[in-house]
Amino acid sequence: MIEVYTQSLSQELFAPFGDVIEVSGTPDKMINKAMCGRFHDRAHLQTDPEGRLGLSLFQSQSFALPLMLEMVERHPLGSQAFIPMHQNPFLVIVAPDQAGQPGTPLAFVTNGAQAVNIGRDIWHGVLTPLADPGLFTVIDRIGSGNNLEEFWYKTPFRIIPN
Amino acid sequence: MIEVYTQSLSQELFAPFGDVIEVSGTPDKMINKAMCGRFHDRAHLQTDPEGRLGLSLFQSQSFALPLMLEMVERHPLGSQAFIPMHQNPFLVIVAPDQAGQPGTPLAFVTNGAQAVNIGRDIWHGVLTPLADPGLFTVIDRIGSGNNLEEFWYKTPFRIIPN
Repeated sequence: MIEVYTQSLSQELFAPFGDVIEVSGTPDKMINKAMCGRFHDRAHLQTDPEGRLGLSLFQSQSFALPLMLEMVERHPLGSQAFIPMHQNPFLVIVAPDQAGQPGTPLAFVTNGAQAVNIGRDIWHGVLTPLADPGLFTVIDRIGSGNNLEEFWYKTPFRIIPN
Repeated sequence: MIEVYTQSLSQELFAPFGDVIEVSGTPDKMINKAMCGRFHDRAHLQTDPEGRLGLSLFQSQSFALPLMLEMVERHPLGSQAFIPMHQNPFLVIVAPDQAGQPGTPLAFVTNGAQAVNIGRDIWHGVLTPLADPGLFTVIDRIGSGNNLEEFWYKTPFRIIPN
């Protein structure tokens, strides 16, 4: 069994896989009589032309570390953004593609004020909140067609807190 | 000065103005080995064809009740969803349209697990978190063209906690 240690989520490390959605730098615009900063257009939301972007809620049970990772999945027709409706860190697992199959996964932990947008066709683990309530808004592609591919690793990975 | 008392946000009361995004009823689908419920397609995200739906962050200072409401605005080209990235209630002010001008506003307070999607062309107040951090993900229309109309009431309203 291969061990994978978690690491802190950052835009730099996550760039090959999608967007870290977080307040960083100065706002692109101050609005509402300067009461509010707008950090504009911070995710590459993707859908094929046959689909559309929709908004759903995911309510998930929480997971404890270490955990066994047996499966990752990807969505060939669109991106998938996970927006926590709480301030609890959650686990984001992604894996590079290697000739159509996922390689060794990376496991990121958010800082409590970060959301993520996982790119189209990027291998990733299922939603893994680390605390209750595991409530998230999800922005993803809605439409007909097969938008899910799963891959089961021959040997599971053990995800261990760093 | 007219006084407006806040009321609890509910799908029923908010229906003329947009969507209350919340877990209600049974999940439309259980996913992730039944660890997670998906409440599917819970908002009417709207944009004109010249625009696209985008994701931004709003970081707002918080407001205290009672507050004075002088202005509401509306977006003729698309909807605007406000997703709290915390569990604190926030204030949602909307107003019915009366021959092109906003009528008496309604003031709703969320329960800490609700987001809202304000419909296209619906009069509403600016983002008014009631606690820090006032961090929200916003899904709205991004594109050129004038998507903002403001209306200043001759006499401000006083929004009072119920």
